[in-house]
Amino acid sequence: MSASARIIPVILSGGAGKRLWPLSRLGRTKQFVSLGGEGSLLRQTAERVSDEDRFAAPMIVAAEEDEEAIVAELAGLGPPRLILEPGPRGTAAAVALAAAEAAEEDLLLVLPSDHAIGDTAAFLDAVERAAPAAAEGWLVTFGIRPDRPETGYGYISRGRALADGLFEAAAFVEKPPHEMAELFLAHGDHDWNAGIFLFRADAMTAALGLHAPEVLAGVRASLAAARREGTRLSLDGEAFAAIPAISIDRAVMEKADRVAVLPVTMGWSDLGSWDAVHALGPRDANGNLLSGDVVAPDSRNCLVRSDGPVVVALGVEDLIVVATERAVLVARRGESQRVGEALDALESRRQKPAD
Amino acid sequence: MSASARIIPVILSGGAGKRLWPLSRLGRTKQFVSLGGEGSLLRQTAERVSDEDRFAAPMIVAAEEDEEAIVAELAGLGPPRLILEPGPRGTAAAVALAAAEAAEEDLLLVLPSDHAIGDTAAFLDAVERAAPAAAEGWLVTFGIRPDRPETGYGYISRGRALADGLFEAAAFVEKPPHEMAELFLAHGDHDWNAGIFLFRADAMTAALGLHAPEVLAGVRASLAAARREGTRLSLDGEAFAAIPAISIDRAVMEKADRVAVLPVTMGWSDLGSWDAVHALGPRDANGNLLSGDVVAPDSRNCLVRSDGPVVVALGVEDLIVVATERAVLVARRGESQRVGEALDALESRRQKPAD
Repeated sequence: MSASARIIPVILSGGAGKRLWPLSRLGRTKQFVSLGGEGSLLRQTAERVSDEDRFAAPMIVAAEEDEEAIVAELAGLGPPRLILEPGPRGTAAAVALAAAEAAEEDLLLVLPSDHAIGDTAAFLDAVERAAPAAAEGWLVTFGIRPDRPETGYGYISRGRALADGLFEAAAFVEKPPHEMAELFLAHGDHDWNAGIFLFRADAMTAALGLHAPEVLAGVRASLAAARREGTRLSLDGEAFAAIPAISIDRAVMEKADRVAVLPVTMGWSDLGSWDAVHALGPRDANGNLLSGDVVAPDSRNCLVRSDGPVVVALGVEDLIVVATERAVLVARRGESQRVGEALDALESRRQKPAD
Repeated sequence: MSASARIIPVILSGGAGKRLWPLSRLGRTKQFVSLGGEGSLLRQTAERVSDEDRFAAPMIVAAEEDEEAIVAELAGLGPPRLILEPGPRGTAAAVALAAAEAAEEDLLLVLPSDHAIGDTAAFLDAVERAAPAAAEGWLVTFGIRPDRPETGYGYISRGRALADGLFEAAAFVEKPPHEMAELFLAHGDHDWNAGIFLFRADAMTAALGLHAPEVLAGVRASLAAARREGTRLSLDGEAFAAIPAISIDRAVMEKADRVAVLPVTMGWSDLGSWDAVHALGPRDANGNLLSGDVVAPDSRNCLVRSDGPVVVALGVEDLIVVATERAVLVARRGESQRVGEALDALESRRQKPAD
């Protein structure tokens, strides 16, 4: 590719969910945490698209308060373009910002900052294969081949073939019931929506204008009032707060005409729960994934992680144990997605009078 | 009883073992901790012998550095006589100190400060029944009826009957192998040595003179150089450090001639492991013993305790979970006695070069 055809990575460094509690209590969102021992997820994401022959300097759309952490985390990788949001407004606003900041013909590769991709070569190959369709105006999504009937993700069903390995996206199904997820898995014609997209900036802007005009207008108003210093862009709080908070999937991808899906197998995980972290991580001979000041004698198939205290896990099996100075999680493997419920229970107990 | 016949409780507030790690890391030894929600074990011990018709003010043999904690813990119970040790020298020295400080004909009731006794009436009744033999010069031990083949305790075998419910102690067996402990349990003629003793001060002094003369001489030399302020006695460090460190069981009880055992069922537990704490504690309908800032949805038969961080125990069974800011234990129930091993493993790992 020529330099002018380089792809601009757009790394979304937004909020973190409850599911990786208690790390969330450390004041660090998930992308700043090392979950597999190879640096933070954010840094891994940036490194994955750091080949200057293929990619331009990334745009990073992030929370204003994370600026320092991001710069520190990406030290040595070349200066990113920072788009700093005064508050979270969902991925539609973030993608619209990047599209509005780019030149019309630029190809943008949208990447969540807190996912793992085990097979970088497969990922880069998929991006290369998707580029021609994106250059023609297709909004290309990368579909992850499901290996289980996950009910927490969105699915994309494949329509007619557009090119070798590329399909029109026939429908988006968000968080299907279990029976439907089983069917999707059995039929093999649905892929997970990983939130990774490749498109021309003007194609996305046009789709936003058609399907989410308030988002686009809000982003433009906010950009008009933004402060710019070098590669750093700070958005105006008042205009930004008026933008509807919505995801790019819901705002555009589910509605637009020319949406394609490129199924890819690349060792992807959203590391959305400690179970997912355990499944992906480098486990020892006992099936344990240990990190921090931890020992686990006679323990098997456990994730034991400390970001502070000494942890002794003695004679236990199939547990998730995560400890910080302020909070500790001990969960049966397979249950770690339910941490949110437990926290709600804790919260409601605290609101009762002390017993 | 007349006032002159009152018994002097001698509460031994010595060191704590490793087994209740990680509480030991809080800088509080076990007797200062509330394990069942009814105040510290030390205070419970003192309250158990606070009836002024039966008992004189207690002597408390304690570590010098614990003075403040003891005074605070016993606030409102009347001033104890404090015997402050500059370092730990074992229970023989502690008992010898109390015996030397008492009048010859005083009856001394030696009590560990970190045990639980569920049935105070049974305990007081046993003390009353033992008093006549003690007044005659017997060293009376209180034997706990075993309910399991515990290999971590000492056993006392019953010899000939001396009076109703009182037996000569035929032999002491320290930490028997499992097969032997099974036999003891089956035969029913062995009781656990709980380290609770009743004796005349002069009978103990005489037995110490015969069987542990170095301990007695060391204690006397240390007392000669001690500082006295009111009810507070501070021992001389140099003389005290020369005393052989040995238990009163090994120094005297296993060897002396007139040793008796009074078997008693009184809901005793040494709370020597988290399993013991769980077994004794007030469990909820799910079999959980929870304390501190803790929730345990869908969890059963667990002890979950926090002395600091929020703890979420989610969908787990038969676990011991104890958390402080600096250390966390997660152990299968039945394994908590092995914490010492795990700590040794941690220590040896730390001495290796970082990997």
